[in-house]
Amino acid sequence: MTAISTINDVFSLINTELEDIESAYADYLKTNVSLIPKISEHIILSGGKRLRPALLILTMKMLSSRPCSGTAMAAVIEFIHTATLLHDDVVDQADMRRGLTAANMIWGNEASVLVGDFLFSTSFDLAVDQGNLKILKALSSATKRLAEGEILELMKTADTSTTEDDYLAVIEGKTAILMAIACEIGSLLAGADDKKQALMKDFGLNLGMAFQMIDDVLDYTSREEDLGKAIGIDLEEGKLTLPLIYTLQKASEEERQQLQEIILADFVSPENFARVYQLIIKHGGIQFTMNRAHQHIETAKKLLKPLESSIFKESLLFMADYILDRDR
Amino acid sequence: MTAISTINDVFSLINTELEDIESAYADYLKTNVSLIPKISEHIILSGGKRLRPALLILTMKMLSSRPCSGTAMAAVIEFIHTATLLHDDVVDQADMRRGLTAANMIWGNEASVLVGDFLFSTSFDLAVDQGNLKILKALSSATKRLAEGEILELMKTADTSTTEDDYLAVIEGKTAILMAIACEIGSLLAGADDKKQALMKDFGLNLGMAFQMIDDVLDYTSREEDLGKAIGIDLEEGKLTLPLIYTLQKASEEERQQLQEIILADFVSPENFARVYQLIIKHGGIQFTMNRAHQHIETAKKLLKPLESSIFKESLLFMADYILDRDR
Repeated sequence: MTAISTINDVFSLINTELEDIESAYADYLKTNVSLIPKISEHIILSGGKRLRPALLILTMKMLSSRPCSGTAMAAVIEFIHTATLLHDDVVDQADMRRGLTAANMIWGNEASVLVGDFLFSTSFDLAVDQGNLKILKALSSATKRLAEGEILELMKTADTSTTEDDYLAVIEGKTAILMAIACEIGSLLAGADDKKQALMKDFGLNLGMAFQMIDDVLDYTSREEDLGKAIGIDLEEGKLTLPLIYTLQKASEEERQQLQEIILADFVSPENFARVYQLIIKHGGIQFTMNRAHQHIETAKKLLKPLESSIFKESLLFMADYILDRDR
Repeated sequence: MTAISTINDVFSLINTELEDIESAYADYLKTNVSLIPKISEHIILSGGKRLRPALLILTMKMLSSRPCSGTAMAAVIEFIHTATLLHDDVVDQADMRRGLTAANMIWGNEASVLVGDFLFSTSFDLAVDQGNLKILKALSSATKRLAEGEILELMKTADTSTTEDDYLAVIEGKTAILMAIACEIGSLLAGADDKKQALMKDFGLNLGMAFQMIDDVLDYTSREEDLGKAIGIDLEEGKLTLPLIYTLQKASEEERQQLQEIILADFVSPENFARVYQLIIKHGGIQFTMNRAHQHIETAKKLLKPLESSIFKESLLFMADYILDRDR
């Protein structure tokens, strides 16, 4: 058995499947309306990390003893993810996405909203064609929770009383759920039993929680060149993420006052960003968040213990660590 | 058999079913995220005409020989319709909807986009729970075409070369498809055969085409008090509807030039609206559109000919005429 020692080894292992998925996108997005592939491909082909398709394929191959294809369902999950990005950029009035100008800045909010809707309905349509009601139920309850997470996040904007529990509910919905169903659907495609299905869903959920926590740390600690988007945007948008929520709890009355003023302001100056960052470091907000992410990754890895060893299991374990260590 | 002589007779006939649907909404929209019912109910309970639920129930009851319930699927269709309205208002930057301030003006575009997404995914989830793949396929292909219709309309904004065929493709997607599947799903719930299913889908499609044509006529001819929203907004938004498309074809070179300037302007003055209206009347754009709507209603009514007489069939025929004659 070849050992997995880099993330590239993981992606090489399932390269055939990932290439099948990539080449299927255009086919699934066929339409007479020319604006749709233009916008969808701008965002889909601008190169996300393809974590969700990889999770689905690895889980499927780990648990299956018979040949099966994850192409359509991996595309479904990437389309839902992409639709969410298009709508998020409208909600956040983002300028950049993956190092490129955000779609809403080129084609307008209107097009981003409607092409997002097209991607949602295409996902649904493609999933229905697979004819598996269990998969459809996993997908439909996930997209519902996804929308709830996004709305909860919007409601908590600039709300300095946001708790860690609020934060966990938000990131579970907006990020972790999609990784959870990538793994859950992978196990359903493999014909795994209910126990393994639940276990893999939980694995994906923990990965997703850690993934978003790292994302939120990087928004404070990364450099723009590395991240492919501006840093400090969470603060700019009034998004209270765990590093800041923890810091608000630990801060002195005077510091909290100062943080509140900065959070509520329309514009965050570089000086104010530096001040917030300094307080987060002082009170250990980054470290606290990293620890929480670490716990989720440990939980995820423990979940896989009872499963038979294989190169796919090794890859999933490697991916868990990769999510924790990534710098972009 | 009681005769149907007013639209109220139609709604009274299926009052129990419609009330069941109304009271089911809140239940289906249950969530921990408080903003969701607030926005959804603002728009759902502000009193649409409930044409789609009525079409579904009437079709189901006409074709079924055994008891069956259309409550969930009627709610699904109303939720999709509502989600579309929320997203449309963001796209159109509308101020008013059904005589009330549009949701995006109260809670912001962000909330309208995300609550629309929640309604879409709730519809999908609710439909999956019915466990009927044929119904799911009807629904998923319909929502896909709905999104295509909306995007095509956006692409054709202020495009004075828009043809009647473009217009037909737009309104089929954005309006007629949902009425088509209301009838199609009604027939599927009734356990009707493929032939009747196709026939009822076609009936709903023709009703929907006529419905949108009348809507587009009313946007030129109605008074604001009657319509519950501003008139002349299609022109203001650069939406070329059939009365204007036809007029552009018939207009002299000089008139066409003048129309083009008004269409491309950011703001339409009352004088310019009056000028456009005058040209539409002069060239018969309203009459032409009314004739087309009339043809669709005639086609729809002919489709029902082979079906056995019943009070439900009578109601569907009445509804077809009502759609043509309505003044709001």
